[in-house]
Amino acid sequence: MLRLLSLVLVTCLIYFYKNQGPSALVAAMGFGIAGYFATDMLIPRVGKSFIKIGLFGKDLSKPGRPVLPETIGAIPAGVYLFVMFFYIPFIFYKYMVITTSGGGHRDISVVEDNGMDSNIFPHDKLSEYLSAILCLESTVLLGIADDLFDLRWRHKFFLPAIAAIPLLMVYYVDFGVTHVLVPGFMEHWLKKTSVDLGLWYYAYMASMAIFCPNSINILAGVNGLEVGQCIVLAILALLNDLLYFSMGPPATRDSHRFSAVLIIPFLGVSLALWKWNRWPATVFVGDTYCYFAGMVFAVVGILGHFSKTMLLLFIPQIINFIYSCPQLFKLVPCPRHRLPKFNEKDGLMYPSRANLKEEPPKAFFKPILRLLYRFNLIDLEFDNNNEIISTSNMTLINLTLVWFGPMREDKLCNRILQLQFCMGILALIGRHAIGAIIFGHDNLWTVR
Amino acid sequence: MLRLLSLVLVTCLIYFYKNQGPSALVAAMGFGIAGYFATDMLIPRVGKSFIKIGLFGKDLSKPGRPVLPETIGAIPAGVYLFVMFFYIPFIFYKYMVITTSGGGHRDISVVEDNGMDSNIFPHDKLSEYLSAILCLESTVLLGIADDLFDLRWRHKFFLPAIAAIPLLMVYYVDFGVTHVLVPGFMEHWLKKTSVDLGLWYYAYMASMAIFCPNSINILAGVNGLEVGQCIVLAILALLNDLLYFSMGPPATRDSHRFSAVLIIPFLGVSLALWKWNRWPATVFVGDTYCYFAGMVFAVVGILGHFSKTMLLLFIPQIINFIYSCPQLFKLVPCPRHRLPKFNEKDGLMYPSRANLKEEPPKAFFKPILRLLYRFNLIDLEFDNNNEIISTSNMTLINLTLVWFGPMREDKLCNRILQLQFCMGILALIGRHAIGAIIFGHDNLWTVR
Repeated sequence: MLRLLSLVLVTCLIYFYKNQGPSALVAAMGFGIAGYFATDMLIPRVGKSFIKIGLFGKDLSKPGRPVLPETIGAIPAGVYLFVMFFYIPFIFYKYMVITTSGGGHRDISVVEDNGMDSNIFPHDKLSEYLSAILCLESTVLLGIADDLFDLRWRHKFFLPAIAAIPLLMVYYVDFGVTHVLVPGFMEHWLKKTSVDLGLWYYAYMASMAIFCPNSINILAGVNGLEVGQCIVLAILALLNDLLYFSMGPPATRDSHRFSAVLIIPFLGVSLALWKWNRWPATVFVGDTYCYFAGMVFAVVGILGHFSKTMLLLFIPQIINFIYSCPQLFKLVPCPRHRLPKFNEKDGLMYPSRANLKEEPPKAFFKPILRLLYRFNLIDLEFDNNNEIISTSNMTLINLTLVWFGPMREDKLCNRILQLQFCMGILALIGRHAIGAIIFGHDNLWTVR
Repeated sequence: MLRLLSLVLVTCLIYFYKNQGPSALVAAMGFGIAGYFATDMLIPRVGKSFIKIGLFGKDLSKPGRPVLPETIGAIPAGVYLFVMFFYIPFIFYKYMVITTSGGGHRDISVVEDNGMDSNIFPHDKLSEYLSAILCLESTVLLGIADDLFDLRWRHKFFLPAIAAIPLLMVYYVDFGVTHVLVPGFMEHWLKKTSVDLGLWYYAYMASMAIFCPNSINILAGVNGLEVGQCIVLAILALLNDLLYFSMGPPATRDSHRFSAVLIIPFLGVSLALWKWNRWPATVFVGDTYCYFAGMVFAVVGILGHFSKTMLLLFIPQIINFIYSCPQLFKLVPCPRHRLPKFNEKDGLMYPSRANLKEEPPKAFFKPILRLLYRFNLIDLEFDNNNEIISTSNMTLINLTLVWFGPMREDKLCNRILQLQFCMGILALIGRHAIGAIIFGHDNLWTVR
């Protein structure tokens, strides 16, 4: 289903782009398919080696708790990186040196131009592209370190910011624009149309790099959910690109082409991983994949200059984070694992619960818990004195089970992915409708 | 001693460069020192975690065979990569965008120029620099995979070529020069001054990337030797750069500045690793370091356009490889380990031997063995019938012991490094003397 949807979407993208001859997007599709098959071939072959060196975990939601290889996300990530290397000659104009006095001097250089104007990328973009791969490769390296050494939360939370350093450094020497547009209603008040954020712009980009990977990493715990949510995110991002290709002004196409070129091969390798990680999973993806995937979206948002739109697609992850906060900040006791509970008898998943009798929540938070309960945003259990005994753990996964009742693990994953997809579509519609109101115009409609 | 020599050398480099204000080389020295201290601080802190996850080895040349952490080379390599990221704003001119219509468009761009002409690098070089870091980061990633999974020889031999792909791809779209100068005596015969090697040039670069890491990896087995030989190589390469800075024509300075800028921080992190890996070693460096270090020299040679000179500095490694060939290709039996033998009684190292009685060498090779013995290039043992019983193993390490007699491990390492340094100096002298004869001129003297 996801595979079909992806194929249709990419074909549409190429269709709306076809009037300019064979393009970077065709290369992207070719490499995406190659990436799919390479990943699909490698995963079953490396599983045993991963288990042998201690990279494995137990699947707690299956009878008998089978041992599965962990950190398999390193395989699609590695394949993706190599695809991105081989990609370079297909998506960039050559900038050839004709005469050199030796020692690497560019005495006379020409930019290759074969009449396929704006079809592949200008040479200018090469540094940007390389910094993106560097950033992703650093993320993979740090993700593997995390999976190997099992770093503490307070350390691993900031790892993606470290991996983003090459991106920010190259942005600094290569582009350096740090001003943002001011919303229309504030223009009058601020008396200017743009504000220079300076260093804060770099802080914003670093936060983006911290947010995306970590938010994917905490919406996890059900077979296939880590990969599934990334596939849905990739499809939504491509839909947004398609909107710009089919209706947007030419000026915005370049950055959306850049986005599509990074996301299509990612979709390819992720679909292959999904095949092995979906219910019943035969491999686990590890933090490596979550970090890597999150960083792909952060990079696309930052370099494509639509990081705010990208954040809108992350609304389910943001909701999951906010919803988790009372437990993360210990207002409500937080058990070590908050995965839904597997019942061996009926094979269904039930919401897992935190015991509030032994370890009560902060007093001021009790009325808030009752309020959440009234709006069906949590499941509480009461004793005869109407005191709270336990609560369902506060994650989007458990909330789905509270809403829709116990279900099998694959159904649960699919339901969450459907919710995510619907929210994403609404976010895209909202963005282009409300964007026009706030900024006076939306870059999809009016600049044309 | 090595630390002092490095400091003097880098100071000389900066001195000969000082007439152009604070330069990329000063930044290189600063980052080199920072890299030294960061590596030195990290190594003792991570050792236990490495042992915990199974990355350890036994030191066979010490009483009691203590267990030491393995793959510690990943630490200096990681520090080096981060130094290279932070480096970017210090060594490249900015290429700022003044006006953008949004979406990453460069409407008007300016190249920053603050009067310090030819002092830091032009923006052109940024892609080249990024491709170098990408190549090194891929090498580290593959090196770690090798150390974790203990790959087979026939696989790991080609890993560096895979890691070199980003370098070759960027060379292809960004520079693309594939012709080489023809030696003077052949000019007349070929009727041209240069030959276009085309695809063969890429094959040559890939071979360079395979050769350098693997040749360092097989000259190993004594505490400190892997790191020590890389430090000596770095010092020799910097000496060559110094020659060009002080006497060379301006046209060649750019590529030697590029070389110095990559090598100085490498020297910094390697000196810190040397402190912990020299006799008596408290950590092992792993294949990760050997691959990473070899690739630094390959990259410098390729991008600095003096790969032939670089190969001359690798003469000791080349000799070690050729000398090993009879055993590698099974003409002479090859035991699993060819490390020199540690004698617990006197604490000295003795040449290790291969038994030729049980498993005789190929018949045609016996006279060659006797010939080598006559020239003192091997140590043979005979029985009463003048039949060969055993031979010293054919590595440069064992040969040194054959020549200079049994010695303590640290003395052995130093002796090999001294030999390597002398050969390197001779190679540099030879290169600039003979280069002038073969090519009609040497780029150090006559282009000026």
